[in-house]
Amino acid sequence: MLDILHRIGVVAPLDEVYRALATPAGLAAWWTTDTVGTSEVGGKLAFRFGDAGGFDMEVLELDPSGRVRWRVIGGPEEWLGTEIDFRLDQRDEYTIVRFKHAGWREPVEFMGHCSTKWATFLLSLKELVETGHGRPAPDDVKVSDWH
Amino acid sequence: MLDILHRIGVVAPLDEVYRALATPAGLAAWWTTDTVGTSEVGGKLAFRFGDAGGFDMEVLELDPSGRVRWRVIGGPEEWLGTEIDFRLDQRDEYTIVRFKHAGWREPVEFMGHCSTKWATFLLSLKELVETGHGRPAPDDVKVSDWH
Repeated sequence: MLDILHRIGVVAPLDEVYRALATPAGLAAWWTTDTVGTSEVGGKLAFRFGDAGGFDMEVLELDPSGRVRWRVIGGPEEWLGTEIDFRLDQRDEYTIVRFKHAGWREPVEFMGHCSTKWATFLLSLKELVETGHGRPAPDDVKVSDWH
Repeated sequence: MLDILHRIGVVAPLDEVYRALATPAGLAAWWTTDTVGTSEVGGKLAFRFGDAGGFDMEVLELDPSGRVRWRVIGGPEEWLGTEIDFRLDQRDEYTIVRFKHAGWREPVEFMGHCSTKWATFLLSLKELVETGHGRPAPDDVKVSDWH
């Protein structure tokens, strides 16, 4: 199994970063504006990206001390069954976010695309919490012909 | 062994992207301004990032049809012996860059940091080739307390 890893540091208290990960309104402000669902353990979240489709997640874990974890239950075949994991730690003035998208079966070109896109969305999360404005889709950073 | 994967698309002919990867002047314009060495197979390249140290690479492959590959021979312990691999393909108006930093031994926090930073540097490469101006260190995008 193959994982996408990222790490960012947000200059903000941990609970502010947690809110951006643990609520539909928070997620809509950095990942995609078209976010609906219920963010509670066992609940479902639907993220859509216009014509490009989207992802459905089951919430596996919500821990305000610093963990959010989802399982992908709908979306592209490569994503099905994979897990998205955010771990937060406060270190001095930073909240460190350790991100993992775990369980890819093959190192396909689409995995590289998703890795690059995750980096841009995590930087959107950082910008949102630090400045009040993120860059969620459809205003996200375009990285290639696959957007 | 664990790999960092990324994928970007640059709106430019393949040979322009290749030049930014295969010459010290090209590399200095998107990764770090402090780039010296000889970009030929068997040659050495030194990339420095001020107080943060840097990396020494041995050039393993230089193929103008679309491949640049290095082995890390100096730098942080986690990088030693790993390989950096750029594959280019022309697809319509895009040159697609498939990037791999291969051979990490452990999924350490520093690997996540480097994955996020590689994304920002590859977007700097895209910007350089498309607009004439990249964001090499020391003017690179800061992602955390580790810069």
